This record gives sequence, structure tokens and C-alpha cells, in this order.
Amino acid sequence: MSVGEDFFPKMHPVPGFKLGISSAGIKKLGKKDLIIMELADGSAIAGAFTKNAFCAAPVELAKERIYSNKIRYLVTNTGNANAGTGELGKQHAKAICDSLAKITSVNKEAVLPFSTGVIGEYLPVNKIISALPSALSKLSETGWNSAASSILTTDTRPKGSSVQLELSGKKITISGIAKGSGMIRPNMATTLAYVATDLIIDQVIIKEIIKNIVDLSFNRITVDGDMSTNDAAILVATGISGIYFSELSSYEQGVFLDNLREVFLSLACQVVKDGEGATKFISVEVSSGRTKSECLKVAYSVAQSLLVKTALFASDPNWGRILAAIGMADISDLDIKNIQIYLDEILIAEKGGRADSYTEALGQKIMDKDSLSINISLNRGDFTETVYTTDLSHEYIEINSNYRS
Amino acid sequence: MSVGEDFFPKMHPVPGFKLGISSAGIKKLGKKDLIIMELADGSAIAGAFTKNAFCAAPVELAKERIYSNKIRYLVTNTGNANAGTGELGKQHAKAICDSLAKITSVNKEAVLPFSTGVIGEYLPVNKIISALPSALSKLSETGWNSAASSILTTDTRPKGSSVQLELSGKKITISGIAKGSGMIRPNMATTLAYVATDLIIDQVIIKEIIKNIVDLSFNRITVDGDMSTNDAAILVATGISGIYFSELSSYEQGVFLDNLREVFLSLACQVVKDGEGATKFISVEVSSGRTKSECLKVAYSVAQSLLVKTALFASDPNWGRILAAIGMADISDLDIKNIQIYLDEILIAEKGGRADSYTEALGQKIMDKDSLSINISLNRGDFTETVYTTDLSHEYIEINSNYRS
Repeated sequence: MSVGEDFFPKMHPVPGFKLGISSAGIKKLGKKDLIIMELADGSAIAGAFTKNAFCAAPVELAKERIYSNKIRYLVTNTGNANAGTGELGKQHAKAICDSLAKITSVNKEAVLPFSTGVIGEYLPVNKIISALPSALSKLSETGWNSAASSILTTDTRPKGSSVQLELSGKKITISGIAKGSGMIRPNMATTLAYVATDLIIDQVIIKEIIKNIVDLSFNRITVDGDMSTNDAAILVATGISGIYFSELSSYEQGVFLDNLREVFLSLACQVVKDGEGATKFISVEVSSGRTKSECLKVAYSVAQSLLVKTALFASDPNWGRILAAIGMADISDLDIKNIQIYLDEILIAEKGGRADSYTEALGQKIMDKDSLSINISLNRGDFTETVYTTDLSHEYIEINSNYRS
Repeated sequence: MSVGEDFFPKMHPVPGFKLGISSAGIKKLGKKDLIIMELADGSAIAGAFTKNAFCAAPVELAKERIYSNKIRYLVTNTGNANAGTGELGKQHAKAICDSLAKITSVNKEAVLPFSTGVIGEYLPVNKIISALPSALSKLSETGWNSAASSILTTDTRPKGSSVQLELSGKKITISGIAKGSGMIRPNMATTLAYVATDLIIDQVIIKEIIKNIVDLSFNRITVDGDMSTNDAAILVATGISGIYFSELSSYEQGVFLDNLREVFLSLACQVVKDGEGATKFISVEVSSGRTKSECLKVAYSVAQSLLVKTALFASDPNWGRILAAIGMADISDLDIKNIQIYLDEILIAEKGGRADSYTEALGQKIMDKDSLSINISLNRGDFTETVYTTDLSHEYIEINSNYRS
């Protein structure tokens, strides 16, 4: 189940970024399960990785390498997460990178590995290595669509976002794909995102950019509150356009960053909408808080409350559950009486109880939609933060209790 | 659904603590919904209350009064939580207390109110006040059983615990009852517990005792991670035995506190076992941690992980989900490779992956039980903490998405 229409955009090629897909036989029935991405020489790269202390072997390796080497290739397999595989898992990830480096005559450490799929099983290394030449032979700047489908595991649809804009009089492209249908699937582990642009971005700046952008996109979504062992979001700047980010006017820098954030946020929201058993897509916006941190605490407390999520599944405008979830966010001096709660534009609660103007019929109208927002005004400051989530349905239990059978 | 056998113990009367039950007509069909508890003159009392910033009117009032007055009566209604009712809700709670105080000729503030039931609706104050004389006429030290049944809302069974022990050569009784079948039901709000003993306990000491005891019992259970707006746990020491806690040997003090903790823990675990849709009762024990806080963080991260809970529902010994839940507990310097995970006494994971000795058949045998423990050894310190939880089933979604319909 997923929310809204199946939507996959026209993907603009990014000069200097090629994708090649093949079948290594990890997934059944000859499905595509191996994706190589080639970065033009001189590309800058940055990544945000899972903070789970139990991170998968490829994540460990990618984190070690990403900022200490010129990266030329990303190699991703699906069907097997190479997680919970200990020291041998790391050797497997290395062996695949080594092999790809050898064939392409690049430095051994110029390759980053990514894996997604079942946890706790060893990678079929030889199968993957055997399939590398085939994937390399398919490398093309138009490989986005095929790659978007190939990296999926239990996702119900491919996820992509692509924009073109003019900067310094030249056309600049930003394109990206993602996979993931829960914040975590420790069995079929999880969210991967790859975004590329042809702008020239300094290595120091691109690191800063990914940190901020992921904080506002992939770090703002939650399906079940769990955190994957394999999450990674990657940004590549190939530089082929010849336009330097650092030489743009601050206005144009802002335009670029806004567009980049839109691409990441679109990918993140596509992951939520494809959430396990999701029937609704919900934005939880907390406004007029004293700090960013307290806005996020309240937003997550609501977005992760099972009672709020089951009420959303039931399309029940249950303001009491929302108030209780706000109250348990552990915010010091929070006076519930000053808080206003809206479903979209309908005021449902204020002064610690149901709003006088509110009727169940008004709330029901909003609740019956498949995309809606819960807007919470704390009325005590100037900060606003938004997180994105889904409801909690029978299908979520079904998927996660039947997964291994 | 609930776990294990329906069990209600023989309740020993506590001299100086009487319970009287009546029907105020809040619940349908003349069901009992009003409970008065009378404390002998000179009783000491202490309570632990919800930390939810959105707490119900009776909770606000009880917190204000409990330590500033000699408390003589506790009045509890079910069927209506008097939460989300703003200033009027507080006036309603006061009116009931005032009326009871007037009839019994005690100080106005010698009465504490408690409410549990539907959120956001005003209390039928007059109905409750009219039923007070009838409840008072039933006051009896043998009223425990009837009270245990009357305070229930959507619980499937009454919860009680009672022990007698000899201290300073005299028989001392500890008896208690509780209600609750989730950590929260903001609609049918939530856990209430009342425990009484006939020991003499100084007011300063009893406050300290309830803090420690609740920390080790009701604060160690989680069904869905949510926190109620009406939670309260009350300890009364009537003093009728004539035995002073402070004059006991430190050995006997320890015996008393152990027994008291057992009563509270038994009540708390009965609440978990009656958890919404629960099919399993799970202890999550985290041992050899560096601090109490890190043990609890890991334990809650596992106990609240929806992926662990759905795996438990499916009786799936999915060690990968447990490892991932430990990894997301946000413990600094946690080396997953040093961690060992057991299901009961079966080692399932170590060195960051599946244990060599582990087989699915061994894990399945434990998983098929309806009570089991997940034991996690961090192997880096001397602290151990345990929390108690349930699985997450279809019935949980059913209950919480259908509740208001």
C-alpha cells in the first residue's frame, strides 16, 4: 500500500554521472540487483550515513573512504544488506570494491560500496564480482530510470526527482533517486539516496551542504521510529558544467540550495508515501516554538505516537491523543493551555481542550483525505519545524510480522 | 487478549484502609464506577503522577493537595477521565471533593480525586455527588476485590497483589490494586494503582519510598511508548499496626521494601500482561552496562522498537532487529561487537552477528512461549536494568483504530 499516485518524473541526465545496471543473481528470476555509478574525474562527493551503532559492513567502509580519497565509483547491490556479518562482511565489501577498481584501473579506495536487502546473510561475492563488467558496459548518463527500479527491495514503486535551473546563464541539472519504504527494515535494510549535479562544488562546501540538506529532508521523516543499519544519502558534484558554486551570487547560491533541498525532500517524502502499510501521508508542523529542538521534540512525539498513528489510520480526528502526545514530549514549562492544534486549517483544540468552533464533522472532512497536516502552534517563540510521517495500519503489522516467512 | 492465566490473589485487608463502591451512572447498565477509599486518621500518603505536561484536572488537583494536607479520602470515578476539560474540569473535580469532605466532616482539601475513562468530555458531577453517600455506606476493609473490578475501564481482568509478613514480631500487610491495559489510553486514560500498608511510615520517608519503588515498577513498563495524562500510583501507610518503619532493623526495612516492590512490580506486570492486544509478555534485561541510564536507553530502544515487537508477535527469533534496535539507542562508544544477546538462556547473537552455536530451531522454541526474556549483555560495566513490555499485534491496531467507533 502506498499513498497518492504513482509518480516518476522525467529524469534529466547529469553530465559526468553515469549509471550502469546488471543482474548478479542475488535477487531471484534474473532481476536487476547491481548498480554501478561512475563519477567524472574531479567530482566532489559527500554523504550522510546512519547513526546506528550497529552499522552494516559497506557503511563502515564507505564512511572510512568517502573523505580520504577521490571517489570514482559507487557500487550498490540489492537483495542482501551485508549487515550483521561481522569482519567477513567487511572483507566481502572490500573484495567487490577491489575488483571494480582493478577492472577500471582506479585507486583501490576510489570505490564506495552500498548494500540493501536481507540482514545476517553473507554476500554472494563471486556472483557480484562476475557481474561487474556487464554493469560497467551499460554505463550511461541516461541510466537513472533503470537504476531507480533496480535498487528497490520491497518498495512498491521507484522514487526519483530531477530539476534543471539556470545559474550564471548556464543550465544546471540536479537529479536523484532513492529507495526505502520504512525508516528501517533491518531485514531489508533501508533508505539509500543518490543525488548528482553538474555544478562545481568545493569538497569542504559539499560536506556542509549535505549535512544541512539531509537534516531538512531524510532526517525529517519517520515511518516507525526505527533507524536502519544501512542508511546512506550521497551527493555528487561532477563539475562538468564549469560553473563554480562558490562564484555564484548569494541569490543564485540560495536558488541552487532551495532546488537541491526540494530534490532531497521530494525523495524523502516519496519514501514516506511508500511507507509500510501507509494509507496516509501526514506533515506535522510545529510552529512558534522557543527553539528548533523543542519544535522537533514535539513534532516527533506526535509523529511517532502509536495512538496518534492508529487514530489517523482510522480517520478519527482524535484531538485528545494529539494533546497527550504533545504533553509527553518532555518540554520544560510547556503550558498546554497556550497551544493550538489545527488539522489542515481547522482549529481543533486550544486552551487545553476541544476548540469551541470545532465539530467532529469539520475534523472528519480533513481526516478523510490521504494527505493532511497536523499544525501545532506552541505560541511561545519564533521557530518552526516540520516532520513527515504515515499512519499505522494493519498492513504494517502484516508486513513486519510476516516478513521472514 | 491478555497473556497468561487470569489471576487474582486473595486480598488481605489492611487495617485502617477501607474501600466503598457504588454506581454513579457514568458507565452504562448500572456498572460500578465510583470508589471511595478512606484512610485512618494519621495515615501517611505519597504518590507518583504522570509527567505528561497535558495532565488531567484531577491529577493537577491531587498533585497540589497530596503533600500539603492530611489526606483522609481518595475518590475515583471510571468511565470519564476529566481530561482535556480545561478550567471547568478542575472545578468539577473540586466540587466532588468538596461534597465528600462536607458529608464526612473533614477538611475540604483532605480529599484527592482520580478519574479514568473517556477524554474530552465533562464529568457528570451531579451524578457522582449523588452517589457518594452510597459508596460511603459500603466502606469496608474487605472492599479490595470489588474495588479492583470497579476501577477497570477496558481492562480484561482485575489486578491485585497482597502479602503479609512479620516485622518486629507483628503481622504487617501490604495490599494493592491497579487498572490499566496500555501505558496510555488517552481516550480511556490509564494506569491507576493504590497500595496500602498498616505500617507507620514517616511522611518524609514515604515520599522517598514511592519515588524509588515506582521507578522500579510502573516506570519500567511500556506497551506502546505513550504516556497517559491520568497516571497515578498511590501508597498509603495507615499506621494501625503500631510498628514504625524507621525503628525496624535495616534488615527488616529491606524485607519490607522488597515486599512492597514486589507488590508494585506485580501490579505493573499485570498491567503489561493485560496490554492492548498483547499475546506475549517480554522482559528486556540489559546487563553489564556502564551506567543505569545506558542500560535503560538500550532496554527501551529494544522494548519500544515496532520491528522487534512485530517480530515477537510473529514468534520470529529475528536477532537482526534486536541488534539494530540496540544500535539506535544512541549510546556513545558502543561497540556492537562486544554485545551478547540471549533469548532466555539461548545465545543468539555476538560479535556483531548470529552466534555460531545458534540455530533457528533453538530460537523458535523460546519464541513460541508466551512469556520470555531478551537478555542483552553490553560487557562493559556493572549495571543491570530490566523493563517489561508486550508484542505488537493486529489486535492493538484494531483496539486503537476502532476505539471511538
